[in-house]
Amino acid sequence: MDITISNQARMDIRDGLWLGPTPSLAPGFTQANLIVLPSKYAFDFLLFCHRNAQACPVIDVCEAGSYQPFHSAPDGDLRTDLPKYYVYRNGVLVSEKRDIIELWTEDMVSFLLGCSFTFETALRRAGIPVRHIEEGKNVPMYITNIECNKAGLFQGPMVVSMRPIPAHMIALAVQTTARFPKVHGAPIHLGNPLHVGIMDLNKPDFGDAVTIHPGEIPVFWACGVTPQAAIMRVKLDQVITHAPGHMFITDLRDEEMTD
Amino acid sequence: MDITISNQARMDIRDGLWLGPTPSLAPGFTQANLIVLPSKYAFDFLLFCHRNAQACPVIDVCEAGSYQPFHSAPDGDLRTDLPKYYVYRNGVLVSEKRDIIELWTEDMVSFLLGCSFTFETALRRAGIPVRHIEEGKNVPMYITNIECNKAGLFQGPMVVSMRPIPAHMIALAVQTTARFPKVHGAPIHLGNPLHVGIMDLNKPDFGDAVTIHPGEIPVFWACGVTPQAAIMRVKLDQVITHAPGHMFITDLRDEEMTD
Repeated sequence: MDITISNQARMDIRDGLWLGPTPSLAPGFTQANLIVLPSKYAFDFLLFCHRNAQACPVIDVCEAGSYQPFHSAPDGDLRTDLPKYYVYRNGVLVSEKRDIIELWTEDMVSFLLGCSFTFETALRRAGIPVRHIEEGKNVPMYITNIECNKAGLFQGPMVVSMRPIPAHMIALAVQTTARFPKVHGAPIHLGNPLHVGIMDLNKPDFGDAVTIHPGEIPVFWACGVTPQAAIMRVKLDQVITHAPGHMFITDLRDEEMTD
Repeated sequence: MDITISNQARMDIRDGLWLGPTPSLAPGFTQANLIVLPSKYAFDFLLFCHRNAQACPVIDVCEAGSYQPFHSAPDGDLRTDLPKYYVYRNGVLVSEKRDIIELWTEDMVSFLLGCSFTFETALRRAGIPVRHIEEGKNVPMYITNIECNKAGLFQGPMVVSMRPIPAHMIALAVQTTARFPKVHGAPIHLGNPLHVGIMDLNKPDFGDAVTIHPGEIPVFWACGVTPQAAIMRVKLDQVITHAPGHMFITDLRDEEMTD
């Protein structure tokens, strides 16, 4: 497996040849959530990630003004290499962008966080169905009533992704994903969604609803969209993120995300 | 095992009843390295820790002005609960203190980093000798020629601790310490000290030299004194740290430092 695969995927996105969600691109390479913040928020946010490492596992950080993720994809450009960006002002999603070249400033600090797409390959290899892939959808994500640990001004609820798993395969799914602590690791809940404050599985807060077959149980993993819920809660003046499901593709192998 | 043990150890230090190195205090409770910095350096330093996690595993961070480590020892006081502090100005060690009450300001951000003392209990339980404990000394620590990953203005060489291990026990020592990724984990080198730039094992940069018996091989672990080498290199205007071997005792159990 050659990193020209991940590099090519980024180039295709940069050139406008790929506009959709990224799960099917560059299989075997780690995809990441993006958060771009003014430098005044950088310490509090990095501390928020540290204190909520299961939801916000840090893969790479670019110092102020840098858009090249030196440790995870040195040829990448965080301004152009994601298919869709969200722009938040004062906690409100104000626009979607194909690139953020015109919004970029020298004061911006960029964070790449691990993504559960990484362990989905391992789940499928273990024979466990991944419904949103089967159905060609984006993974369903929900805002829970689980409060994250605060850090400075950052606070908010944990966001989770959900995959329906046949009951007899749940132990295997737990073991399989627990091997990947750098990309959310083991589930944080399974079973009744009301216990974590999710009212209706058919109405995800991000992504698409998926079918739950008889005999399947919804299983919930901490999700890298959690920072976006915090950004909405604390009403930061300016933040740019990936659009959920539209990730940054790194040169890191999924295997490097195991413990 | 009750946290009154760790709390009592901190109280004894606070009351001036214990002035020496801390390894023998509150066995089973995690001890931590302390770094106290002006807030302007906090983001760069936290990023330095993230990028050099084996040397600088973050256990707890107190936001500016707070000296109570909420997540690791809520009853603790970082200004008084270590037996000895080092004060650096412009990268030079200028004084040793029994407490830092008079130096404390509202702008100070405190970091607690994991310490290899944590895995020494596990080594001894596995029947592996820990020489500096046998000899009643502080662990020997050396500045290596291994460069840490830079972060902002922080850069410097990795500092390592050394324990001589009988050759037939080294595999066991690696496995035993690898279980503790939050407190430096597996060794970073073993054998010839020259290969990592250590000229003379009898002249450690911090701590005390220990006896190496025939048939033993020096084994080197990343050490939480690494930030002090960076502080000296980059000549920060003001920093306070623990004195090597004189650690902060948390309420966290050693077992919590396993993966």
